[in-house]
Amino acid sequence: MGVVITLTTDFGLSDAYVAEMKGVILGINPDVQLVDVCHTINPQNIAQAAFVLSTAYRYFPERTIHLVVVDPGVGSQRRAILLHTPFYDFLAPDNGVLSYVLREYTTRQSGRSVTVPPELEAISLNKPAFWRSPVSATFHGRDIFAPVAARLSLGMSPAAFGERANSLVTLPVPRPGKTAGGAVIGQILHIDNFGNLITSVREQDLPENKDTVLVMIGGKQIFGLCRTYQEGSGLLALIGSHGYLEISLKNGSAAGFLGMGIGDQLRLNLKGGGKQ
Amino acid sequence: MGVVITLTTDFGLSDAYVAEMKGVILGINPDVQLVDVCHTINPQNIAQAAFVLSTAYRYFPERTIHLVVVDPGVGSQRRAILLHTPFYDFLAPDNGVLSYVLREYTTRQSGRSVTVPPELEAISLNKPAFWRSPVSATFHGRDIFAPVAARLSLGMSPAAFGERANSLVTLPVPRPGKTAGGAVIGQILHIDNFGNLITSVREQDLPENKDTVLVMIGGKQIFGLCRTYQEGSGLLALIGSHGYLEISLKNGSAAGFLGMGIGDQLRLNLKGGGKQ
Amino acid sequence: MGVVITLTTDFGLSDAYVAEMKGVILGINPDVQLVDVCHTINPQNIAQAAFVLSTAYRYFPERTIHLVVVDPGVGSQRRAILLHTPFYDFLAPDNGVLSYVLREYTTRQSGRSVTVPPELEAISLNKPAFWRSPVSATFHGRDIFAPVAARLSLGMSPAAFGERANSLVTLPVPRPGKTAGGAVIGQILHIDNFGNLITSVREQDLPENKDTVLVMIGGKQIFGLCRTYQEGSGLLALIGSHGYLEISLKNGSAAGFLGMGIGDQLRLNLKGGGKQ
Repeated sequence: MGVVITLTTDFGLSDAYVAEMKGVILGINPDVQLVDVCHTINPQNIAQAAFVLSTAYRYFPERTIHLVVVDPGVGSQRRAILLHTPFYDFLAPDNGVLSYVLREYTTRQSGRSVTVPPELEAISLNKPAFWRSPVSATFHGRDIFAPVAARLSLGMSPAAFGERANSLVTLPVPRPGKTAGGAVIGQILHIDNFGNLITSVREQDLPENKDTVLVMIGGKQIFGLCRTYQEGSGLLALIGSHGYLEISLKNGSAAGFLGMGIGDQLRLNLKGGGKQ
Repeated sequence: MGVVITLTTDFGLSDAYVAEMKGVILGINPDVQLVDVCHTINPQNIAQAAFVLSTAYRYFPERTIHLVVVDPGVGSQRRAILLHTPFYDFLAPDNGVLSYVLREYTTRQSGRSVTVPPELEAISLNKPAFWRSPVSATFHGRDIFAPVAARLSLGMSPAAFGERANSLVTLPVPRPGKTAGGAVIGQILHIDNFGNLITSVREQDLPENKDTVLVMIGGKQIFGLCRTYQEGSGLLALIGSHGYLEISLKNGSAAGFLGMGIGDQLRLNLKGGGKQ
Repeated sequence: MGVVITLTTDFGLSDAYVAEMKGVILGINPDVQLVDVCHTINPQNIAQAAFVLSTAYRYFPERTIHLVVVDPGVGSQRRAILLHTPFYDFLAPDNGVLSYVLREYTTRQSGRSVTVPPELEAISLNKPAFWRSPVSATFHGRDIFAPVAARLSLGMSPAAFGERANSLVTLPVPRPGKTAGGAVIGQILHIDNFGNLITSVREQDLPENKDTVLVMIGGKQIFGLCRTYQEGSGLLALIGSHGYLEISLKNGSAAGFLGMGIGDQLRLNLKGGGKQ
């Protein structure tokens, strides 16, 4: 088998849109391995797609092509982008859906766009010769991204597909803040299938000794971090499998129990509740 | 990799029925590419399956085998059919689920069956030698269609699997009508994951100049057609990526906004509202 | 293409967890065929996963690797197991999720564990050299099971991955009981996408002549068994495609109609209602 192409979309599971993209890809390169990352991104939710993609892409073999079609601006002036990194290629609309990927390479990322760092190459897809013909105005996933992904998987050079782009649109990637008193303020980035709350606080934002951390969330307090979902009882906090602080409820849904959602805040006292 | 086999069913995502079919196929031909078209067709909704299949099949490489198992009559006298067309092979119960495919080749399609046109070949599967043994009475997808698809993908001739069928069951494919005053009356065929209303009106039913079209739907009026989902504001009409007139709500669900469902009607004045 | 690896999890469809496992597998063996069995097992529902797996695994080609990650005890002392059978390999936490598979080889299965029968080989995975590094405490599906599955698919010997386990955890597999009067008492094991009630009563629990069977369920009576879902009208009973007695409602959902759920009981008089 050849190259892996992954697909992340907001197309849902009740239409044939994803299958159409796969059909186009297989018509150009029948030897790819197609892997679905997620197709139940909420319609047009670029931030959610950016996060879900960020949790998955690095577990794939080098030179996997990650195709992301969450594209509310399809057919407008927004660019279609190929982002070539040392390990992967990403194909996506230039709408911020690659923000977490770009964060790996750029420390400063303020405002709504970022200069493409020198170790990356961004190409604005503008060569219709490599697209389906005719191109619909409403489904570039099938008519532009899929054929470009398939041709890229055959070994074509990224530069062949368009002209170099010097900057890319980014979304703000939530990062935890610090209060004057030294507390960390984070927010909920994602709620997973188990109801675990995945937060913007990462392992590197916490002290070596995690036993002294006090998490305050939804009016509850959690003392210290656990290692697994089965420790203690009730609410617990741990560093999840992607390096983010997660709030979990043993054998239940923390999201349901706390009634909290994406964007809601949590606060961490790093040296415990009683000591500050 | 060898041939592509696609699967369209009403088996849902919480049982292993689809996996069983794939297991049987891979036991016979380990080199196929399996692609899911849709498994969330509403149980036994042949018309929905026929539509969803129709939007997808033509984007696959030539000689793809499209397997469709929405089969309320499984085990009864309904036939199991292999339809061989110049580009694709279809395996499905003879219950109308291939009606849109047949429409490509037959202009007349009245009543509940159609004569198989000369450029197609329909085979009624009646050679148990090519099936699983024993054959269950309730799961022909696994026991008849899957092994036949796999053997067909290995290069067996369609005629080997049974005897020629001269006519096939069809469902009425909704086509727009015209009023005495020249207005077009269409209906909603499908509602997609974004809440777009996909109608029976096709691009060829509309005049060259689409700026003068007035769409009346759910008590609302839409003047002229857009090219993309991002134009204007509120409700808009456009020709979607499969050539059907769609009604969409910018950054929202037209289906939810209008409270309309499949089968509901819309009316188009082709020369504008004020001019008739 | 090489070996087939199937995946059964409770990871749902809105996160990238399944994709991460696939990425890890493809990084080690790019030539596997990956097949999803089911990812919508209710969170941490081991019994449901055990049943769904049991309906699917035998339809796959010999030496398929079945990977099952429904793992509430991840990171705790529960073992990670490779079960090598004459036809298949199973990778799963040692929590009972392989109970139906083990039932094929063990007649006695009382209590909460079973001695591994001589024709099988069970290995407790304890060789970190074959895992991802570092191993997370919360996602062994990605960090232990996936890499072991991929290496096994490359032809490594099961014994290489750890030390032999002599017993495995099992769940009680519901079997029908008999009353003093000879009636069979079964229970609902599973409700499928069509609302069919799949029961613990198997074909071998019933007499040759099934016309005399009287099924009593949810206050209703069903006389005799049908062969297909389309016979008679209303509620019907039949032997489904996996050999279990099923209760079905013609063109409807038996589960919805009867308001019954998993674990609820039914009673069968084998010689008819009027004759006992």
